[in-house]
Amino acid sequence: MNGAESLVRTLVAGGVDVCFTNPGTSEMHFVAALDKVPGMRCVLGLFEGVVTGAADGYFRMKGTPASTLLHLGPGLANLHNAKKAHSGIVNIVGQHATYHIGYNAPLTSDIEGLARPMSSWVRTSPDAKSVAADGAAAIAAARSAPPQIATLILPADTAWNEADGIAETPVDTQRPSYSPQAVERAAKILHGDAAHTLLLVTGSALTEQGLALTERIAGKTGCTVMGQTYHPRMARGRGRFSINRIPYVIEQALPILKNFRHIVLVEANDPVAFFAYPNKPSMLKAEGCEVHRMTAWGENSVAALEALAGALHAAAHDVKPQQHQELAKPTGALNHASIAQAIACAIPENAIMVDESVTTGRGFFPPTAASAPHDWLQNMGGSIGFSTPVATGAAVACPDRKVICMVGDGSAMYTIQSLWTQAREGLNVVTIVFANRIYQILRGEFDGVGAGEPGKRAQDMLKIDRPTLDFVALARGMGVPGRAVTTADEFNKALAEAVAEPGPRLIEVQM
Amino acid sequence: MNGAESLVRTLVAGGVDVCFTNPGTSEMHFVAALDKVPGMRCVLGLFEGVVTGAADGYFRMKGTPASTLLHLGPGLANLHNAKKAHSGIVNIVGQHATYHIGYNAPLTSDIEGLARPMSSWVRTSPDAKSVAADGAAAIAAARSAPPQIATLILPADTAWNEADGIAETPVDTQRPSYSPQAVERAAKILHGDAAHTLLLVTGSALTEQGLALTERIAGKTGCTVMGQTYHPRMARGRGRFSINRIPYVIEQALPILKNFRHIVLVEANDPVAFFAYPNKPSMLKAEGCEVHRMTAWGENSVAALEALAGALHAAAHDVKPQQHQELAKPTGALNHASIAQAIACAIPENAIMVDESVTTGRGFFPPTAASAPHDWLQNMGGSIGFSTPVATGAAVACPDRKVICMVGDGSAMYTIQSLWTQAREGLNVVTIVFANRIYQILRGEFDGVGAGEPGKRAQDMLKIDRPTLDFVALARGMGVPGRAVTTADEFNKALAEAVAEPGPRLIEVQM
Repeated sequence: MNGAESLVRTLVAGGVDVCFTNPGTSEMHFVAALDKVPGMRCVLGLFEGVVTGAADGYFRMKGTPASTLLHLGPGLANLHNAKKAHSGIVNIVGQHATYHIGYNAPLTSDIEGLARPMSSWVRTSPDAKSVAADGAAAIAAARSAPPQIATLILPADTAWNEADGIAETPVDTQRPSYSPQAVERAAKILHGDAAHTLLLVTGSALTEQGLALTERIAGKTGCTVMGQTYHPRMARGRGRFSINRIPYVIEQALPILKNFRHIVLVEANDPVAFFAYPNKPSMLKAEGCEVHRMTAWGENSVAALEALAGALHAAAHDVKPQQHQELAKPTGALNHASIAQAIACAIPENAIMVDESVTTGRGFFPPTAASAPHDWLQNMGGSIGFSTPVATGAAVACPDRKVICMVGDGSAMYTIQSLWTQAREGLNVVTIVFANRIYQILRGEFDGVGAGEPGKRAQDMLKIDRPTLDFVALARGMGVPGRAVTTADEFNKALAEAVAEPGPRLIEVQM
Repeated sequence: MNGAESLVRTLVAGGVDVCFTNPGTSEMHFVAALDKVPGMRCVLGLFEGVVTGAADGYFRMKGTPASTLLHLGPGLANLHNAKKAHSGIVNIVGQHATYHIGYNAPLTSDIEGLARPMSSWVRTSPDAKSVAADGAAAIAAARSAPPQIATLILPADTAWNEADGIAETPVDTQRPSYSPQAVERAAKILHGDAAHTLLLVTGSALTEQGLALTERIAGKTGCTVMGQTYHPRMARGRGRFSINRIPYVIEQALPILKNFRHIVLVEANDPVAFFAYPNKPSMLKAEGCEVHRMTAWGENSVAALEALAGALHAAAHDVKPQQHQELAKPTGALNHASIAQAIACAIPENAIMVDESVTTGRGFFPPTAASAPHDWLQNMGGSIGFSTPVATGAAVACPDRKVICMVGDGSAMYTIQSLWTQAREGLNVVTIVFANRIYQILRGEFDGVGAGEPGKRAQDMLKIDRPTLDFVALARGMGVPGRAVTTADEFNKALAEAVAEPGPRLIEVQM
């Protein structure tokens, strides 16, 4: 077998059985190997950003890495987002043949240099016989705790020359753990001053079980439990403990945090503003507030929370039941509130919500706390164009779950090519586009950074009109049925149909 | 004025009066400054790859750099292409405020690390008072010989804090020159063995004037003049000296080059294969063939060719007139030959042809040699998705010239968002999409790299069908009128109308 085949077989044997691809010439042997090796599902994307984002969404839902197959074109924005989400991904990037690189042909570039800012692990295979072992090392790196972006660069001749066979991927014998001393410290703080203590959670603490443990701890001690502003994945909906998040807007975050004298971090970070603004703080906690890390990304936060609950004698009967507003289908005009209500009513059992709603969705959390149980995925890196690819990958990972992608019109246009892949693969993704014809987030940020009142030319750089985008036409062009809605009743109807039907659908919400 | 305004004013004063933008929060002060400072035209793109490619196309046609305004998301693929095209671009990329970077907020990334592989000049402004001078230095770098990609990173506070005023951009007092010794050497070779000498030209030699000089030299000495496979810009059509190019396919290139004992390089490189293939050579010249560089990128090749013609006493009367096939509108089915004929007939006076036709367009050069005079632009970096953005930038640079973009369906999908910017700005761009529903280049490459016969799954990674893309719907979704054609007669008609009408148009050629 050649190097390419040794790699594909190693991947499949190592449990990596999905490859999101956007291949070029230097990847043709890998593509050929896909035919020879059963067990690898290949999903084609029309742009690298679709591929890398899909691998992120796949990992968040599946918990094990997919691979990507890329040809120079970086798709780096979505790798940045994936890295911040602590997703594990095995990227395979073709390079010129080892003997050809020095001749500076047009497609020659510094791929390692490009990969390093976004990948925790980067390696170039030196020859065909090394490829399998390098692939196994990449898988192991992707699977580590916390997971990593692993980029393996394959010169074309390492793919076509003879290899020795496959390599075995080391199985992680080490289970993620936690520090008993850190748990003890947290217990002490909660014993001492729970009324002024914030338990700030993210990552693996946000499973249904992790949240239930925090609910007991809050019920027993009276502390506050909150999430960071953004999470890779959070269990939500009926039957799950519903927590608030630190608001994005600094003026809203500061009063919420100001009375805490202690923040106990469960994989989270010391609260920081998303951006700096003139005359506003970068760090959001009150002066004199102490920060204590109980677990870091990659540790076993559920086990730590169990130990903490045990230390506090917090049990199921300590839980204070939560009240949620009733679900009620809205009627009348489409606005942020009615949109939120309509979506909350429409979420089916076990849905996956991929949220790039930006400004439109700032009020989505309260009404959806009462929805059917679901998972909520957000952008961890801030680079927009994250959601349609992540929704694509999540749907590949969980074919029996409905994926609902909620995205602003500006954000949608970065990686709109995702829709074609959804049609190609028959994925159960409903894409809801909020068409307000403006990068509304930037309109707010313009004010927030103290830039004054935008004149005509500045407005032209913020508005997405002249012409208005027709997302139904765009979706149709890529094989996805779609419709536009202008009232709450139309939106309810479109949501119900899209959720009931298999395959991809798009709904343009004209605001 | 704040740092952002000092930069905008410096750019305009320094002759950079176009900015292709895809701004984010950290660029809001720059956007605000655009309102305050007359003279800067701002063009919005929906994706970074549109922005960076537009700046490439703008430079190629205008000869002076545009600026781009970016927010993290790299658009690196088209910067790679621009760098290989030796285009000068001033990229302005926002970064977190200087005091905020260390807090590792979500959008924090190593922008310098990302920029370096694609930029010859990278600088992060340390404070607001430095911004203007850094901007002037970036312009000077972009304008150097050869031109460079200059990336200036602006922490947000350098934009909002007070500056001192604008900075003057140094004017290049040094005119590009050439080496008289190198010209002498070339003259000697042509005196000695012109019949076995190839004059291999690109870059600034490809103006109408430069080509006319090579035509005299060829007529006088009997040497061969050829171009590299790809060029940033070549003057072509009636009245211009028509030269062949080294073919992309190695089996075609080798016999063409095998009888040359000398290759004189006029900005070109020692001929190298685009990719390595098993058992095929990387370098394409015959064994024993000597390579002599007369000029490098950035030197004054037209002056060198004038000196060379003088040394050889090659005059206008030495020119051997060329015969070209007559233009004839095709009829019947659409195939590579009839498509080429239809386009050749339709090219209007002084058009700009942006060529990402890949496999469909391999035969475009012979028939278009007889077309109305035009410029031909190709991809220098091999990263596809180059043409619709470059066409956009070229149209902004030359509003009185019709731009015709010829692009394969696979390539078109990388940066299809360009169409919206063309509609936004009312650009005179006709986009012709060759819809053969396959990455045909890869189908050939699959064979070329010796990967065997593609089975079903490999074919799935090469074909762009299930579903077929509807480019007319996609174009309509972005405000560009379009139509699909299935016969040569329909294509002729669609071309004539699209060329005659102002504003952007799309023609989907169903093959």
